[in-house]
Amino acid sequence: MRHLITLDDVSTDEIQRIFALTQDIKAKFAEGVREPLLPGRVMALLFEKQSLRTRVSFEAGIAHMGGSSMMLGEDAGFGKRERIDDFTKVLCQFVDVIVMRCKSHETVEQVAQHATCSIINGLTDVAHPCQALADLFTLKENLPSLDDAKLAWVGDANNVARSLAVACGKLGVHFAIASPAGYEFAPEFLDSLKQQCPAMQMTITTDPHEAVTNASAVYTDVWASMGQEQEQEKRKQDFADYQVNGHLMASAPKTALFMHCLPARRGQEVTDEVLDSPNSIVVEQAGNRMHAQKGVLAWLLGTQGS
Amino acid sequence: MRHLITLDDVSTDEIQRIFALTQDIKAKFAEGVREPLLPGRVMALLFEKQSLRTRVSFEAGIAHMGGSSMMLGEDAGFGKRERIDDFTKVLCQFVDVIVMRCKSHETVEQVAQHATCSIINGLTDVAHPCQALADLFTLKENLPSLDDAKLAWVGDANNVARSLAVACGKLGVHFAIASPAGYEFAPEFLDSLKQQCPAMQMTITTDPHEAVTNASAVYTDVWASMGQEQEQEKRKQDFADYQVNGHLMASAPKTALFMHCLPARRGQEVTDEVLDSPNSIVVEQAGNRMHAQKGVLAWLLGTQGS
Amino acid sequence: MRHLITLDDVSTDEIQRIFALTQDIKAKFAEGVREPLLPGRVMALLFEKQSLRTRVSFEAGIAHMGGSSMMLGEDAGFGKRERIDDFTKVLCQFVDVIVMRCKSHETVEQVAQHATCSIINGLTDVAHPCQALADLFTLKENLPSLDDAKLAWVGDANNVARSLAVACGKLGVHFAIASPAGYEFAPEFLDSLKQQCPAMQMTITTDPHEAVTNASAVYTDVWASMGQEQEQEKRKQDFADYQVNGHLMASAPKTALFMHCLPARRGQEVTDEVLDSPNSIVVEQAGNRMHAQKGVLAWLLGTQGS
Repeated sequence: MRHLITLDDVSTDEIQRIFALTQDIKAKFAEGVREPLLPGRVMALLFEKQSLRTRVSFEAGIAHMGGSSMMLGEDAGFGKRERIDDFTKVLCQFVDVIVMRCKSHETVEQVAQHATCSIINGLTDVAHPCQALADLFTLKENLPSLDDAKLAWVGDANNVARSLAVACGKLGVHFAIASPAGYEFAPEFLDSLKQQCPAMQMTITTDPHEAVTNASAVYTDVWASMGQEQEQEKRKQDFADYQVNGHLMASAPKTALFMHCLPARRGQEVTDEVLDSPNSIVVEQAGNRMHAQKGVLAWLLGTQGS
Repeated sequence: MRHLITLDDVSTDEIQRIFALTQDIKAKFAEGVREPLLPGRVMALLFEKQSLRTRVSFEAGIAHMGGSSMMLGEDAGFGKRERIDDFTKVLCQFVDVIVMRCKSHETVEQVAQHATCSIINGLTDVAHPCQALADLFTLKENLPSLDDAKLAWVGDANNVARSLAVACGKLGVHFAIASPAGYEFAPEFLDSLKQQCPAMQMTITTDPHEAVTNASAVYTDVWASMGQEQEQEKRKQDFADYQVNGHLMASAPKTALFMHCLPARRGQEVTDEVLDSPNSIVVEQAGNRMHAQKGVLAWLLGTQGS
Repeated sequence: MRHLITLDDVSTDEIQRIFALTQDIKAKFAEGVREPLLPGRVMALLFEKQSLRTRVSFEAGIAHMGGSSMMLGEDAGFGKRERIDDFTKVLCQFVDVIVMRCKSHETVEQVAQHATCSIINGLTDVAHPCQALADLFTLKENLPSLDDAKLAWVGDANNVARSLAVACGKLGVHFAIASPAGYEFAPEFLDSLKQQCPAMQMTITTDPHEAVTNASAVYTDVWASMGQEQEQEKRKQDFADYQVNGHLMASAPKTALFMHCLPARRGQEVTDEVLDSPNSIVVEQAGNRMHAQKGVLAWLLGTQGS
């Protein structure tokens, strides 16, 4: 029984295997072919927080593959009427895979501990492995090679940034991050990252211009994620110099791609000029959420994924 | 990429094509045959307002055809966290068709403008094309021919009435409408209708008895639609003479059918006597919502619909 | 058109037929085979109350069989905008089977009266036939034979207890029930039971130790069901002597199984010691909800079920 909780659990070879499955599935999809790789398989989406992109990309993805899904939102009473282990054991009697979107990463870990079916982390405060897989797959598609690639993250060292850093480390991509003081990676995370990826090239700075220099792609995210709305005003000030705009992109190569996990707050972390530029691959990147997740499903559940 | 936003966009030939697909699909369904015409295809239902009939008829319909659907209700955050164009481009990465049920018709038009997948208007304040297609298909099934048919609408000249008028115009059906003063078709709508269907036979009156004379079918709808509840009392008075009851039906031919898009407010716009009479085809009409929408889906998405 | 409203409507032979279908479906499922017995068939779940187990087990079950489902929760407006008969006739135009979970048993009976598709009682205040079928199937799997079996219910003589009593009566299982004064079966229910199953072996007592003596399985349920939360404190006192704990299980044979329809309130009606013991089959029992319901669906809808 394999899970996908963070990218720490997945080897470079396994990421390459997921990418190969993704590429195949996406190519066939583009030709109108939707192979029923998971006939009659059932996914539960256990979501404590709304997430349109994550929800729709997973539900559409498994439907393309001949399976189906059911959304268990906040009203499902998860964790309210019984212990997590009791709930998990029962749910695993019915479904083949559970995608979780939880406020607390520990909840996902607890469920995985008791689960007899595969658990996929669909986003927690700690990690967003599906996003990072989709993003690196997108880079791979858009660059001649990942070997000399450099991904520059500008903004909060958040869950997406963490998963991207690990993915870059495992795939040999130079990862640069420019965050304001107080929003950097925690030392524990950096220690774990170095241990996992000792040869990793990494740039940590407070200067966005330094980060984007020679970058193959510049990536940013909203300044305040869901649940941080009350910090909105403070963060607006703290991140004021971290907007990805034409001025910042001028420090990057002309070919540098722009990436964002969306939804974007136009005029805050990114300007229209950049988001709507020909270098922006955000829509393709969003589409790859679905394709990469189908790759993950084929890897975790499929007979062809083993 | 074709959409179905209003019947203005659909030619008489295309309506006939949709009817042919509908007839075939319905006949096979009656025999227990559910051909997987849309295997692995995915529909999103983007609903700002509740709508049991529209929702269930679309979800069941695509399921019969081997596809699947997902309900994105008010809690989907549509239009709240990002611009409509950004949201639309992403959603179209995942799904094959979007059915919308919106307060404002302009929202559907905006989405269609940016969509790379088919958009179906599942009901707006302006138009209800799927209802009108189902209704004319129902008439076609129940009459020897549409050529000499006359459809009499009694009540508010609302979204359903508008779509029915266009459908009748394009299919050569005489459309009569009796509405109280203040609830008639807008002059702009009538201008557009005449331009589209110059040969159309139309009767506009304030007298319901005049409208139903020689009618093949008498059609009414609730006096106050969803969202107009505050006007309920005023409308009760204004429409008091427009109830479809035995007295009014006595002015129509004995064979005149009774139609209603449901749900009905028994005792208001229609009496039990009429709604439960043998001439009432409201349940068949409701069932045809599903069959006609399957015809629309086959036309928009199906390899057999081209 | 067959429904499953209570087990009163189902003969012993029919229960055996459902069990045979269940056994076959479960065995194939264990081998990874999910036969599309209900391709393109559509289930509506009409739920007035939340119910994770009932919902997920039905939705996953029909998905395994190639069908699909849609959840119509409280927000569906069932019974609010139109009469139940009007609503039912329309819904039956779209779906093949309706699973209902209602506060009032009469609502299910009303819907069944007007339905032109199969109705399944997914839980009412009166009966829980799917639970009882799953439970007896579980007993059958875990005992050499049902012939000499004895099922002991400890606690409230509620909906689950009623359905279990009927199932035991029809399958020749000795049913013992220990309830505190004021929580016993109503005389009308007992009269009906005796009439249906004149040869039934039954023990009715207020002493839980008497009930569990020689029991093949001991079964309990929460002291206060959903909707009875305000009686919580009073019930805690009234049921204090009816906890299933090690002391009570010592009065049963060492091989006695422990059953619970879940979710359990650990430390109230059952202790951890019993719930987590090797004799506890509650997770398997929960899993059999799905398998037995698939048997019911195959029986009601399937070409192979006739």
